[in-house]
Amino acid sequence: MKTAAIIGGGVIGGGWAARFALNGWNVAVFDPDPQAQRKIGEVMENARRSLPGLTDLAMPEEGALSYHATLEEAVERADLIIESVPERLDLKHNTYARIQAACRGDAIIGSSTSGYKPSQLQQDAADPGQIMVMHPFNPVYLLPLIELVPSGANPADRVERARQMLLSVGLHPLQLRAEIDAHIADRFLEAVWREALWMVRDDIATTGEIDNAIRYGFGLRWAQMGLFETYRIAGGEAGMAHFIEQFGPCLQWPWTRLTDVPELTPELIAKIADQSDAQSGGLSIRELERARDDNLVAILRALKARDWGAGALLNAHDRARAPGEGDIARPLRTVARAVPLDWTDYNGHMNEARYLQVFGDATDRFMEIIGCDADYIAGGQSFFTAETHIRHLAEARAGARIHVDTRCLSGGGKKMHLFHQLFAGENLLATGEHMLIHVSLDTRRATAISDALAGKLDRIVRAHARLPHPEGVGAAVGKKGDAGAAR
Amino acid sequence: MKTAAIIGGGVIGGGWAARFALNGWNVAVFDPDPQAQRKIGEVMENARRSLPGLTDLAMPEEGALSYHATLEEAVERADLIIESVPERLDLKHNTYARIQAACRGDAIIGSSTSGYKPSQLQQDAADPGQIMVMHPFNPVYLLPLIELVPSGANPADRVERARQMLLSVGLHPLQLRAEIDAHIADRFLEAVWREALWMVRDDIATTGEIDNAIRYGFGLRWAQMGLFETYRIAGGEAGMAHFIEQFGPCLQWPWTRLTDVPELTPELIAKIADQSDAQSGGLSIRELERARDDNLVAILRALKARDWGAGALLNAHDRARAPGEGDIARPLRTVARAVPLDWTDYNGHMNEARYLQVFGDATDRFMEIIGCDADYIAGGQSFFTAETHIRHLAEARAGARIHVDTRCLSGGGKKMHLFHQLFAGENLLATGEHMLIHVSLDTRRATAISDALAGKLDRIVRAHARLPHPEGVGAAVGKKGDAGAAR
Repeated sequence: MKTAAIIGGGVIGGGWAARFALNGWNVAVFDPDPQAQRKIGEVMENARRSLPGLTDLAMPEEGALSYHATLEEAVERADLIIESVPERLDLKHNTYARIQAACRGDAIIGSSTSGYKPSQLQQDAADPGQIMVMHPFNPVYLLPLIELVPSGANPADRVERARQMLLSVGLHPLQLRAEIDAHIADRFLEAVWREALWMVRDDIATTGEIDNAIRYGFGLRWAQMGLFETYRIAGGEAGMAHFIEQFGPCLQWPWTRLTDVPELTPELIAKIADQSDAQSGGLSIRELERARDDNLVAILRALKARDWGAGALLNAHDRARAPGEGDIARPLRTVARAVPLDWTDYNGHMNEARYLQVFGDATDRFMEIIGCDADYIAGGQSFFTAETHIRHLAEARAGARIHVDTRCLSGGGKKMHLFHQLFAGENLLATGEHMLIHVSLDTRRATAISDALAGKLDRIVRAHARLPHPEGVGAAVGKKGDAGAAR
Repeated sequence: MKTAAIIGGGVIGGGWAARFALNGWNVAVFDPDPQAQRKIGEVMENARRSLPGLTDLAMPEEGALSYHATLEEAVERADLIIESVPERLDLKHNTYARIQAACRGDAIIGSSTSGYKPSQLQQDAADPGQIMVMHPFNPVYLLPLIELVPSGANPADRVERARQMLLSVGLHPLQLRAEIDAHIADRFLEAVWREALWMVRDDIATTGEIDNAIRYGFGLRWAQMGLFETYRIAGGEAGMAHFIEQFGPCLQWPWTRLTDVPELTPELIAKIADQSDAQSGGLSIRELERARDDNLVAILRALKARDWGAGALLNAHDRARAPGEGDIARPLRTVARAVPLDWTDYNGHMNEARYLQVFGDATDRFMEIIGCDADYIAGGQSFFTAETHIRHLAEARAGARIHVDTRCLSGGGKKMHLFHQLFAGENLLATGEHMLIHVSLDTRRATAISDALAGKLDRIVRAHARLPHPEGVGAAVGKKGDAGAAR
């Protein structure tokens, strides 16, 4: 089990701590702020309700989180040390000197700095090659981007080790090809922020109107494709070069305020704060954080279903952690996951349609186990569900760890009869009984289960026939089933 | 029925045409490009597969789309005229002169211009008050934002009429408080584009890496909250004013290239085009358009379920169009909608879990009809589904217009027994039989249906008892039900 040291808490350090701990790392925190434990605790709470539902697999057991009285004690055993102290170069240099005097020689030190280049951070360090930029984005426990910026002083094998550690906790290290002030994203944010301040100052739009201009328009495009791919499409059949030539001349027009920086007078600050209150003041910061996390989970899961953008990253992370099939003589563990935030409804529990989604996922996994995987389906055959019977026995809330155990009641000819049991721990939440038909995707009609699947399916059917008959099979709505009947 | 005239086709004009036609307006197009009909046809095709699934109600019948040989003929009867000709002021002035010589005096002329201010467009016009900026975002048929920019020359009642017309087709007119070059969004896009060109030129990152820096990080934040609300959260408990004071100093640092504009040499253009090919060249523009639309639909529907941001706009638009309950002596029409793009799966049809989602929506609507609406649920009582039986009889593809007719088989005491039939036209796709339990949301246990619901429920039960008994009720998986049995 690996250990991360978090030097400097706050929203960013706390987000790092949550990302590592929930991915099974031990986390050692040093932060002189007397409020650090409370603040990090609040970030951990936000992370626990939102992050586990992003994966379609079970998360590892949470690592241990410890708070330390000295920086030296916190970094002592760490594999990776994350520095998130305030943005003052002298303070950062001083922090690295203390870290390097106490940490392992093979430890890596990542800085959350928004603006400094790694070569600036490394000045006068005992071992400059240990220090690199790892710039995260708030909330660190949900957003996958890390700007990983090494300098020429960082040996390639250390950079690669840093990359692997970040990947292992579901982050996407975007390695810059050259160092630059403020890396990539903050340069964009800076340019937009400056323009936005002017617009508020000049009464072109309020803060709320500017946010709407972003989130009802290009914000939706950027969430999934970014800038260049969006423009590639806008260029149409004529291509990217044509688009640039067309768009080029506007660059010279006075469409931005450029070097001008609005003076941050008390009046301008008050104006922005007042508009921001009017826009979102009905919600506390804590409520806003949760709304943001709910939205991000919903968007990320939507992109995951599309296997696109940040959702494709989540799928790749899941694939790298996929479990084996287990012992076929027992019911097969076809799902093990947490209930995501976006699966609940107005009744405060997992919505009924999500029960069938879970059973559908269990069926997909069972199909995969018998060999009906993506390649098989691409070959033109699959299973369609003909009939479903669900009994809801108990509720599940967001965040609940659930699993499905699946039995195959029969399978052969053109049909397969599955019985799923959905549990939270020992507690049976629901059963799903499903009749599936093997089909040709060309004719969309039933066709005999192919030899490629029949052998494995038959072995499972025979193994499961020896299990005790499950309660609830063969029931109609409002009527008892044939539980206990000989079959 | 209203008529929109589209002057200038292309991606933007075609997007406007699709937005209006799919919302039931007649659309008259004038575009001298001999390819116009094909190009607009392709945009229409993209819109038809993506837009109807954004609403949870049935779309109106599509309006008639006509192509005209002259501008004068196209604008003659139009309520709203959208100008999307190239960005040259003389060309726009000439176009307005021809439009105003032929159009109705009460027609409104909206310009898609990215950069010009309305006062520039209105120069020397016969009726300056008719002309205003309506700046849309590609794809116009999916993104709700329109920057509506009037000048002092536009009478308030005309601006209000323009706003109402845009709202009626599901757009969000964001009215600027003062005119400014490039309005709001394009000033941001311009600043970001300029920075991005520098980074590619200087080999800091490739086009693909820059897109990832956006869509794995702040792009996800901006899609749902924009800039100021995101920073409000980052400021934490100390508030917005504190955040601005902290962030303020960086504005003076060299984090952007500011006035510098990279020269668009053939080498730089080729470099960007090559990187863009490497990033997305595996997909044709048509395929990219569809991927983008699939992603946007998935994100917009995720936000709709959260009733947040652009999703809250969709819900407001639905609420304004919600149908009445109809005749309770017949099965109740509880759902009428199109199958959204994000409801299909690897088998190329509507996923089984979405059948239960539709039946769940039908149940929600039935609950609402008997008085179990949001207020009732907020009062602490609701219905939980105890049991479900679904028979899948035929497939549904994305875009299919589907509806659900619902019968109440019994209702009283603590229970309600519903039977939903899901159709595409006359074709029965599936049935859903559901036993629901009336519960207290405090105790999470069954409790008698309250008097507030019982009267209406009983009237429906008695009316539906006179309907012929539906086929398929009371079946278990793999077994016939009690169809035709006396009840």
